[in-house]
Amino acid sequence: MVTGLKSIEVLQDDAVALRRKFHQTPETGFTEFITTYEIYTILKDTDFKLHLGTEVLSPNHRYGVPDEEIIEASRKRAVSYGVPDDFLDLLEGGNTGLVAVLDTGRPGPHIAMRSDIDALPILESEGASHKPSAEGFRSVHENEMHACGHDGHIAIGLAVAKYIHQNASQLTGRFTLIFQPAEEGGRGARSVVEKGWLDDVDYFMSGHLGIHEATAGTVSATTERFLASTKLDVSFNGKSAHSGVEPNAGRNALLAAASASLHLHAIPRHREGATRVNVGTMNAGSGWNVVADHAEIKMETRGETNALNEYMLSEVERILQASALMHGTDYETKFMGTAIGAACDSKWQTLVREANHANPDVVMIRDVLPLDASEDVTYMIDHVQKRGGLATFMIFASPLAAGHHHPAFDFDEAAIRTAVSVYINNINHIAGGVLHESDD
Amino acid sequence: MVTGLKSIEVLQDDAVALRRKFHQTPETGFTEFITTYEIYTILKDTDFKLHLGTEVLSPNHRYGVPDEEIIEASRKRAVSYGVPDDFLDLLEGGNTGLVAVLDTGRPGPHIAMRSDIDALPILESEGASHKPSAEGFRSVHENEMHACGHDGHIAIGLAVAKYIHQNASQLTGRFTLIFQPAEEGGRGARSVVEKGWLDDVDYFMSGHLGIHEATAGTVSATTERFLASTKLDVSFNGKSAHSGVEPNAGRNALLAAASASLHLHAIPRHREGATRVNVGTMNAGSGWNVVADHAEIKMETRGETNALNEYMLSEVERILQASALMHGTDYETKFMGTAIGAACDSKWQTLVREANHANPDVVMIRDVLPLDASEDVTYMIDHVQKRGGLATFMIFASPLAAGHHHPAFDFDEAAIRTAVSVYINNINHIAGGVLHESDD
Amino acid sequence: MVTGLKSIEVLQDDAVALRRKFHQTPETGFTEFITTYEIYTILKDTDFKLHLGTEVLSPNHRYGVPDEEIIEASRKRAVSYGVPDDFLDLLEGGNTGLVAVLDTGRPGPHIAMRSDIDALPILESEGASHKPSAEGFRSVHENEMHACGHDGHIAIGLAVAKYIHQNASQLTGRFTLIFQPAEEGGRGARSVVEKGWLDDVDYFMSGHLGIHEATAGTVSATTERFLASTKLDVSFNGKSAHSGVEPNAGRNALLAAASASLHLHAIPRHREGATRVNVGTMNAGSGWNVVADHAEIKMETRGETNALNEYMLSEVERILQASALMHGTDYETKFMGTAIGAACDSKWQTLVREANHANPDVVMIRDVLPLDASEDVTYMIDHVQKRGGLATFMIFASPLAAGHHHPAFDFDEAAIRTAVSVYINNINHIAGGVLHESDD
Amino acid sequence: MVTGLKSIEVLQDDAVALRRKFHQTPETGFTEFITTYEIYTILKDTDFKLHLGTEVLSPNHRYGVPDEEIIEASRKRAVSYGVPDDFLDLLEGGNTGLVAVLDTGRPGPHIAMRSDIDALPILESEGASHKPSAEGFRSVHENEMHACGHDGHIAIGLAVAKYIHQNASQLTGRFTLIFQPAEEGGRGARSVVEKGWLDDVDYFMSGHLGIHEATAGTVSATTERFLASTKLDVSFNGKSAHSGVEPNAGRNALLAAASASLHLHAIPRHREGATRVNVGTMNAGSGWNVVADHAEIKMETRGETNALNEYMLSEVERILQASALMHGTDYETKFMGTAIGAACDSKWQTLVREANHANPDVVMIRDVLPLDASEDVTYMIDHVQKRGGLATFMIFASPLAAGHHHPAFDFDEAAIRTAVSVYINNINHIAGGVLHESDD
Repeated sequence: MVTGLKSIEVLQDDAVALRRKFHQTPETGFTEFITTYEIYTILKDTDFKLHLGTEVLSPNHRYGVPDEEIIEASRKRAVSYGVPDDFLDLLEGGNTGLVAVLDTGRPGPHIAMRSDIDALPILESEGASHKPSAEGFRSVHENEMHACGHDGHIAIGLAVAKYIHQNASQLTGRFTLIFQPAEEGGRGARSVVEKGWLDDVDYFMSGHLGIHEATAGTVSATTERFLASTKLDVSFNGKSAHSGVEPNAGRNALLAAASASLHLHAIPRHREGATRVNVGTMNAGSGWNVVADHAEIKMETRGETNALNEYMLSEVERILQASALMHGTDYETKFMGTAIGAACDSKWQTLVREANHANPDVVMIRDVLPLDASEDVTYMIDHVQKRGGLATFMIFASPLAAGHHHPAFDFDEAAIRTAVSVYINNINHIAGGVLHESDD
Repeated sequence: MVTGLKSIEVLQDDAVALRRKFHQTPETGFTEFITTYEIYTILKDTDFKLHLGTEVLSPNHRYGVPDEEIIEASRKRAVSYGVPDDFLDLLEGGNTGLVAVLDTGRPGPHIAMRSDIDALPILESEGASHKPSAEGFRSVHENEMHACGHDGHIAIGLAVAKYIHQNASQLTGRFTLIFQPAEEGGRGARSVVEKGWLDDVDYFMSGHLGIHEATAGTVSATTERFLASTKLDVSFNGKSAHSGVEPNAGRNALLAAASASLHLHAIPRHREGATRVNVGTMNAGSGWNVVADHAEIKMETRGETNALNEYMLSEVERILQASALMHGTDYETKFMGTAIGAACDSKWQTLVREANHANPDVVMIRDVLPLDASEDVTYMIDHVQKRGGLATFMIFASPLAAGHHHPAFDFDEAAIRTAVSVYINNINHIAGGVLHESDD
Repeated sequence: MVTGLKSIEVLQDDAVALRRKFHQTPETGFTEFITTYEIYTILKDTDFKLHLGTEVLSPNHRYGVPDEEIIEASRKRAVSYGVPDDFLDLLEGGNTGLVAVLDTGRPGPHIAMRSDIDALPILESEGASHKPSAEGFRSVHENEMHACGHDGHIAIGLAVAKYIHQNASQLTGRFTLIFQPAEEGGRGARSVVEKGWLDDVDYFMSGHLGIHEATAGTVSATTERFLASTKLDVSFNGKSAHSGVEPNAGRNALLAAASASLHLHAIPRHREGATRVNVGTMNAGSGWNVVADHAEIKMETRGETNALNEYMLSEVERILQASALMHGTDYETKFMGTAIGAACDSKWQTLVREANHANPDVVMIRDVLPLDASEDVTYMIDHVQKRGGLATFMIFASPLAAGHHHPAFDFDEAAIRTAVSVYINNINHIAGGVLHESDD
Repeated sequence: MVTGLKSIEVLQDDAVALRRKFHQTPETGFTEFITTYEIYTILKDTDFKLHLGTEVLSPNHRYGVPDEEIIEASRKRAVSYGVPDDFLDLLEGGNTGLVAVLDTGRPGPHIAMRSDIDALPILESEGASHKPSAEGFRSVHENEMHACGHDGHIAIGLAVAKYIHQNASQLTGRFTLIFQPAEEGGRGARSVVEKGWLDDVDYFMSGHLGIHEATAGTVSATTERFLASTKLDVSFNGKSAHSGVEPNAGRNALLAAASASLHLHAIPRHREGATRVNVGTMNAGSGWNVVADHAEIKMETRGETNALNEYMLSEVERILQASALMHGTDYETKFMGTAIGAACDSKWQTLVREANHANPDVVMIRDVLPLDASEDVTYMIDHVQKRGGLATFMIFASPLAAGHHHPAFDFDEAAIRTAVSVYINNINHIAGGVLHESDD
């Protein structure tokens, strides 16, 4: 072990404190200006080389980039928080996120770790039993919330970065830490992959807090059953009319969207495995007495395999067309994000077990957990594997106050401690060459 | 005739110019801060006594008052237009509108005239063939538009006010000019009635531009078939869940609202006469991958009689309840506005014919036109009639570029000229006592 | 008056008794074998010349002819009632109904009267308060019922026939009595018109019992607002699949029909006037665990004018297409019946008033009643008027135990008495030339 | 081996011929009069003791028994086929099926085998490429078809019976052969279980032709993932009204059923595993112009576990209630059939392998195949296992002309041959004591 238990504890304490800090300023995908700046501030005095903006990601391979006004409003908010304008200029157009690289100069593996940094458009609970409220670290951003644990992921990533920086002399090879924007909706990962950060990675690791509701300290070494998923924005355009004087003259876009929503949720189940569909939002119409000439929905499909997701998408296409026809409107579909299916390398099961058999923060190690959800980390896993690397996505279990994406979502911060020490032990196991050499 | 043709022409020219001015700064119901201030500015140097704020209307009898933030944002906008803060203080809480009273001091009838001043939440057309765009007086307020001719109504009311002011010495009795906020949705009229402005009115007149697509100059002396109407805001509250991980854990408020929308539009027609229903807006959910826990719709019902509107409302109640149950959500209904049925006094048919038989701006006079729409002027008509007065609502026909409430709505401004001279001739006929006396 | 009150009373008593007889053996459109035979039996010994089968109607101008098996089953039932096979051969293919002609040989008007003879596919009430049940003349045919009063219409037509036969020597001109099959659904009238029976009619009269819920004895001389109507049979063809093993492989015709039904009922109301739509029946699928590959609906549209009915039909076409597309099925539409709009001649108002001013069975005569329903008599009215004749459709009011087409429908038989004497008085007034001549 | 290859071949030939015979006279659940009589005729001269009627099953534990008229009509049809009335009296009330018992008198295991005998309400394809049509053994019953292979199951059961009869002297223990009615919909198995036939069974075997699309000769020794399932008949009762005159007076049961159908198919997928829902049939209304006062649907739910099926049923209950409320109707639910989840005993995997390692009709043996469908054999499996016996359900794979429950369903008859020899080899392996003794 390159570092005493004591110093890891300090990093763990730091991580919990940082998590609470990030929890208060959640930012949704491609508007993580404050978040990126905080990460930058913490890492800028380390030996890591930091990359920002279009060095991090390929702007045209991003999905579901928000409207310019939304990006602009978030940028203004960041300015009001004291983020310098010249820093924000680097992130122009919502090219948020950061990549930190440290090369030990010694031969050894290239290890990459990915932490996702975005939040969700959810109004956080003010309930007395909601710990962030009770203990004063609730989101100060209306309708934005870290309701999926990415605040913890950032903090863990930073703790690991500090560890590598502090122990670089005793490690081998190269480290690439990716702080990825816009995981929600599967919008950011591919744009990072396209910049080549993962082209020659030997060991790729990422992970998630929560998901598995078990005692903190329970770790799953790998994950299976990532759902392939596609996010779409659909708009229906009809014709407005005075609903009292001439209801027959309208072409009702609100009803087209309503028909679509009901019928989309009734797509038949598939014999080959799990599928999902969700119309998550609808915004339609202008007033009580106007036949709605416009409606927009945000929706997604998922499938246990890429083929199942394709099945869902082909049903969606027909249903959207039929719903528009049903009410005499037009419609338009915008592709907003995607995640593919993938599988972790089972060699990571052995690796995690060996690296952590003596880790006091680990209660139990499982080989594999089914996710039944989507994660754009699959683009990274797939890319690494295609080029011969080994990839995993670990689950750091925790009891949950409420499920992921719920206004009262919260997890046991002990899971952060577990994650920090697991990542560090993995690194030591794989790249802790220097000390091992001298020790042996 | 108390005033020469020439001076009426000047008032008509003024009215057309003012209409274009008001067209550029549309404000929706109970946010008419700029509009009220403009009216005030024009009338403040006349002999009219002006009333504002809670002198105009009873705040608690308003329906569908917007959220405080919306009122506040509109007020701020008014400030940026140069409307003084102390003036805006008088309209605190969105108590917009103005009542102007002039007493000639001579015995005679009490004549009241009502002009409605609010706009609609519609994005005005930028089309080259849309005259307000082509001629540079399109709305400068995004998503607000005078798409129902109320800009013209304000201008007509002001022209009539000027006329009364200029010719007061030759008129008898008393004049009450009501610039009513929030007609759309039937939200403002009752609050004005409750302040007593119409308690002792002998002759009440109001009217509408357009509606009847015929040559400008065609006037209907009275209106029938006002549709009774009710506006409701309905919210559905379900339970959010991650749509990939645990779709079964959600309670889908978006689908509840969608089911409600479809089924509301399928309420059976009624043997007794015309009915209407419209779900005009829907806003639901928070993101692609979250089961929507909240949805809001704005809707309305109408009926050719109050009983038919009641029939619709009772169907609505059951359908909302069923839609919530269908998806396991709660729901809440907020009453947002209403208009009752009413009938004009047929004596006004004779009166308008006699007063305007020689009016050169009038091409044809019809006795009565069916409206098949709702107007909260019915509260005023009903109130005046119950206390022995005579009430009418005239229609000033015009060819229309596009129907009422359409983004490309526009009318022939000649209809404004017709309306100005018809109102003035009516006034002279009823209250032109002084001159008549001396003339005869 | 050609006949004493006494003898009319006998005809009235006969009519009531016959109505009860016909009530027991209701037959739906184009299966009126027993009914036609009973009419034939009663008239065969009069001076009327009787016409049957393809002499009565043009088979190819019938709408909604039932499947051969249904016709065959009804024919077999008729045989079991003792209707001779050679008689039934004349009605081969469901060419039911009868036309009876009597020429007085004296110059005079050609008067035509139409009685519709079909029943509805409704299971008659067995309730103790349902008079036909209580008094023992309930339908003996399962799922068939005279729930619209046509049993009375037949009886009235026969009473009028007997009257003409008995008093032929005192009447002038010619009489054509049409016992028309398949009025329900608008399926039979046009086929009779096409045979030329109404080509040279001077006075055409028909009528309906009930409709207007008022004291029996109240007569409306004419009717307005016949709704134009179209009946359609629509079938959806999808693909069956095992709903457990491979739900995704099906194409659900049942859901296509269900989507169509809901959306058809939500066709927007029209500003120009009353419209109607009804999906009256659905039959779909084969078993619990088979995705339904077939569905059929019977539906109709109506409009206050032919144009409004056309509006409905064009909406229907689009919605059917969209519903099929929504579920990936095909669909097919079969035209099953129609009624056009029409207007009675107001001259009949005077005529009925004059003929019946002293009729003791008449309590009150109205000029006109709005029908707000469809009747294929409009084909006859339209045809007669186009060739210069005068046509009416009278309403013989009655209190109703339950509405038309209800399992407990029943009317006051006094309305039959009124109808008999009104028709006879009309005939006497128009064609009672002989006696009038000699009397005067 | 107790019997030479040659004699098994004869039994196999017989089975194929019998399958074609049974294929022509398919009968749906609890109307298998002809079928039961044919089975009886074939077995009555063997040493089996035959049981019929209420000896076979407990009438009150049957689910989804058809209406008396349907049973009566099927019985009449059987009479017309020459089935004696006194035989049919034994099956009074649709208590169809047969149990055949043979006791060798020698100590040994009690082996039970179950063959299901009912058909589906499907109109068989007349296509030239459909072998039963092409080769002249298509169903002669309109709308009934052996579209699930039960014709083969009967024939296999009979071949096994003949084998046991012929070789009884060389076998040990006792044999119970169950020819079970009404498997489709899960309606018959429990009623047989309740009569105690399986109370002391040591080895239970049943199986299915097809399911697995692979070369005939491929056998799965056991089956997993039986879907728990429930069949329901739901009726909605509203109020009829004339759809033209008074649409508002109706309570539309057809629309209630349509709303229910759409929303049932949109029940959210469940995180825990596969679920299914199907509304398989709808019958509603009486005519084009009558608001439908009655509608009936046949529906089912399924779940990978009993808990998942319960989840579906609780959603169903709420949706039915909401759909009735939506249209102001009542509704009633009738429980029509069910199948529980179950698991085969893995010991059968060894047993089938050992018994058939040299079986020339077997190409490949799989241990287990997932079914993803429902089978009421689960009641039998569950019962046998609870009392200490071992149970299996084998799959005899076949290429399929079209899927199960499809009008063109057909399988390779070689699978029948395989099944016959596998069952016989299993029996010899388990109970072939006599010969083995003497042989060894």
